[in-house]
Amino acid sequence: MHGQENLTLLTDLYQLTMAQSYFREQQLEEATFSLFIRSYPPNRGYFVAAGLRQVLDYLERFSFDNAALDYLAAQRIFTDDFLHYLSGLKFTGEVWAISEGRLFFKDEPVIEVTAPVIQSQIAETFIINQVHLQSMIATKASRCVHAASGRPVVDFALRRTHGTDAGMKVARASYLAGFAGTSNVMAGHTYGVPIVGTMAHSFVMSFEREIDAFRAYAASFPRGTILLIDTYDTLAGARNAATVGKEMAERGDNLIGVRIDSGDLPAQARAVRQILDDAGLRQAKILGSGGLDEYDLVDFSATQAPFDSYGVGTKMGTSADAPWTDMSYKMVEYAGRPVQKLSAEKISWPGKKQVFRRWDDQQQRLGDILGLRGEIFADSEPLLEKVMENGRPLKSPTLASSREKFLEEFHRLDDAVKAVRDPAAYPLEYSDSLRKLQRQVSETIKQQGAS
Amino acid sequence: MHGQENLTLLTDLYQLTMAQSYFREQQLEEATFSLFIRSYPPNRGYFVAAGLRQVLDYLERFSFDNAALDYLAAQRIFTDDFLHYLSGLKFTGEVWAISEGRLFFKDEPVIEVTAPVIQSQIAETFIINQVHLQSMIATKASRCVHAASGRPVVDFALRRTHGTDAGMKVARASYLAGFAGTSNVMAGHTYGVPIVGTMAHSFVMSFEREIDAFRAYAASFPRGTILLIDTYDTLAGARNAATVGKEMAERGDNLIGVRIDSGDLPAQARAVRQILDDAGLRQAKILGSGGLDEYDLVDFSATQAPFDSYGVGTKMGTSADAPWTDMSYKMVEYAGRPVQKLSAEKISWPGKKQVFRRWDDQQQRLGDILGLRGEIFADSEPLLEKVMENGRPLKSPTLASSREKFLEEFHRLDDAVKAVRDPAAYPLEYSDSLRKLQRQVSETIKQQGAS
Repeated sequence: MHGQENLTLLTDLYQLTMAQSYFREQQLEEATFSLFIRSYPPNRGYFVAAGLRQVLDYLERFSFDNAALDYLAAQRIFTDDFLHYLSGLKFTGEVWAISEGRLFFKDEPVIEVTAPVIQSQIAETFIINQVHLQSMIATKASRCVHAASGRPVVDFALRRTHGTDAGMKVARASYLAGFAGTSNVMAGHTYGVPIVGTMAHSFVMSFEREIDAFRAYAASFPRGTILLIDTYDTLAGARNAATVGKEMAERGDNLIGVRIDSGDLPAQARAVRQILDDAGLRQAKILGSGGLDEYDLVDFSATQAPFDSYGVGTKMGTSADAPWTDMSYKMVEYAGRPVQKLSAEKISWPGKKQVFRRWDDQQQRLGDILGLRGEIFADSEPLLEKVMENGRPLKSPTLASSREKFLEEFHRLDDAVKAVRDPAAYPLEYSDSLRKLQRQVSETIKQQGAS
Repeated sequence: MHGQENLTLLTDLYQLTMAQSYFREQQLEEATFSLFIRSYPPNRGYFVAAGLRQVLDYLERFSFDNAALDYLAAQRIFTDDFLHYLSGLKFTGEVWAISEGRLFFKDEPVIEVTAPVIQSQIAETFIINQVHLQSMIATKASRCVHAASGRPVVDFALRRTHGTDAGMKVARASYLAGFAGTSNVMAGHTYGVPIVGTMAHSFVMSFEREIDAFRAYAASFPRGTILLIDTYDTLAGARNAATVGKEMAERGDNLIGVRIDSGDLPAQARAVRQILDDAGLRQAKILGSGGLDEYDLVDFSATQAPFDSYGVGTKMGTSADAPWTDMSYKMVEYAGRPVQKLSAEKISWPGKKQVFRRWDDQQQRLGDILGLRGEIFADSEPLLEKVMENGRPLKSPTLASSREKFLEEFHRLDDAVKAVRDPAAYPLEYSDSLRKLQRQVSETIKQQGAS
């Protein structure tokens, strides 16, 4: 799961049955696949690229071990020849990609894979699985960061992410997209994401009196205490926290703040702020949590609710208002021949592509052109770079450096496109060459295809 | 991820900071936690229990390895004493649970864990993470099975599940809830779920003519061919499939059927059925797929669309219309003292519990009583059983036997409660003893709690 395991068998059966058919036909030419999102989910107008690192790790390790081959043999649908072929299979292809943390838009390929068709086809399932999740979550998290207007946001999602891998990747992707940290200790260990934590209601409940719980925690963490004050009654809890905060100050310790996890959060925060201020604890911060998402945060920001930071969990970690996108991995070229689908409402763009991001003199973004890989447009930055060649990764930016890049580019994106509700469209054009190729390929298919 | 890895660090930081505080106070008594869902997501009126197997595996392996301890030490917030304590920590507690595949309802504990508080607290995050996902997906999948009215349904979700672990657990949970199989090869290997597959659009596109792709696949899989017919034009694809089906029949082979993945599915299915029938291929089946969920399937069933089976993916595998529940793991007893929360809208039920399912003379279900663990109700089945004692699992039903149990119980559940839209409420009562205990605990807290 965390880059150690052999995940080659984590694929759809049809990838392997198609592979056997390709093998039998000796149809082993190179195919290029584009990974892209066809349309925006509700209230989305951009995406944040994430998950490339795991794709490259997977492709580097791509191989069927003996346990996998034995299992496949036992299915009695694969020939000995083909299983022998699989036993020696490695990924030997090339990958072009938009760097993690960069913005991308609908129809723009975030990854393009070129490799002998069996390799590039079997890898489809894992590639979508990782980039879909991480890009969706990075996008969701960036919306929370934007909505929080500068207040730090941390990831509390682990318990309700969809499984353990999602828990890890949500911590990673949300940090990439500007979160300040995660509660997930293993993500701290594996990815170096800063880890953060407060206390749970159960801790308070295990003591007979709330204030005893607060005092015990403060004794353990004289410099790291955030008290959860809503187990029984938030305002009474705030008064207990103020008492403990003053006791800490007298000892030379420091109460970092309090957390409110239920109720009418802005109203509670105002009342709690007053109690803390009256107790001389102006420096004590208020962390808001409890079912929050970007829609809440943007409203809290607008009404200046006195929160200093936020913990967001379930709704961010499941991208609850848009828990999937139509991200697809489509064949765009086979053996040098551009190809595309004509299925109802799913016409695709053929050929190897490039995304050109244009800037004006003031380095303000003007919009993107989706074109063919060989094209050149003045004053534009081509976003897809070669990141793997002959099955070997060419470069590996750190998560921290990708996060910096994200923050810089996100800062320059128009607020209207970043809007949490009803975002404006980002300018995206399709190059003439791409349009022409699509027309040609459609014509060719209509003439000979389904005949 | 699949039961091999040490996941003890996959927890929230606050579990460990609270543990240090418990340790410092030597507050190490037994605590009982209840895992339950407080309310139904939209259009849900029941849940299917799933994920217990992974919880027991996790608890059996619970231990901090050296890498984990080194990482924690480097955070500089934990004392040497405490880290030494963690290094020897095992799970020594007791678990009561409702068996996997059984139905459960809101407020009913699906699992209760009793162990020294540090153990039972640290385990919270993983326990919710697994049982939340798998129960949510088993519930969603059971809705698809119900809506399909006897037609087999298979899992195609892997590419868009939230990460790799979700891909595995969606295959497992959907099979538990009556699915016929999965496309996920690794889930076949790990859990013994039957694996199924057809072909992708890319396979068709890699050949110059669709019919060449169909012939190639049929040559590889003379007994296992399902042709995907909507890459270019569904009706033309159906005619190509009919041609290949007749060629197969002449060779003594057998076309299993065709798959339609886009467009107006019921209308396409009717036209395709006609083409296949006219070609004498009455036995060839039609598999429907492409963004389907239980709402589509129930409508297709109502209008008798001529589908023989369904592949459901993204929307099932992300539980798209309800991608999270408010499943919680709440402390209900500490050191023999029943406890509960009073937070706004989150009042919990104190004490160790039991769920009593009542039957009438005809073995028809009458409803459940949520009571305390020691209670007895005539003609009722107590659902929570002891499944772990002193940290050792007591029994392990196979996935297949749990699936059988599910199908049997689900068959007996009222159709009105199973309804895909606006389900009827299942009868659930709270025992007098439980109500009395809640009143007593509330009073005690109000008298002394937040003081």
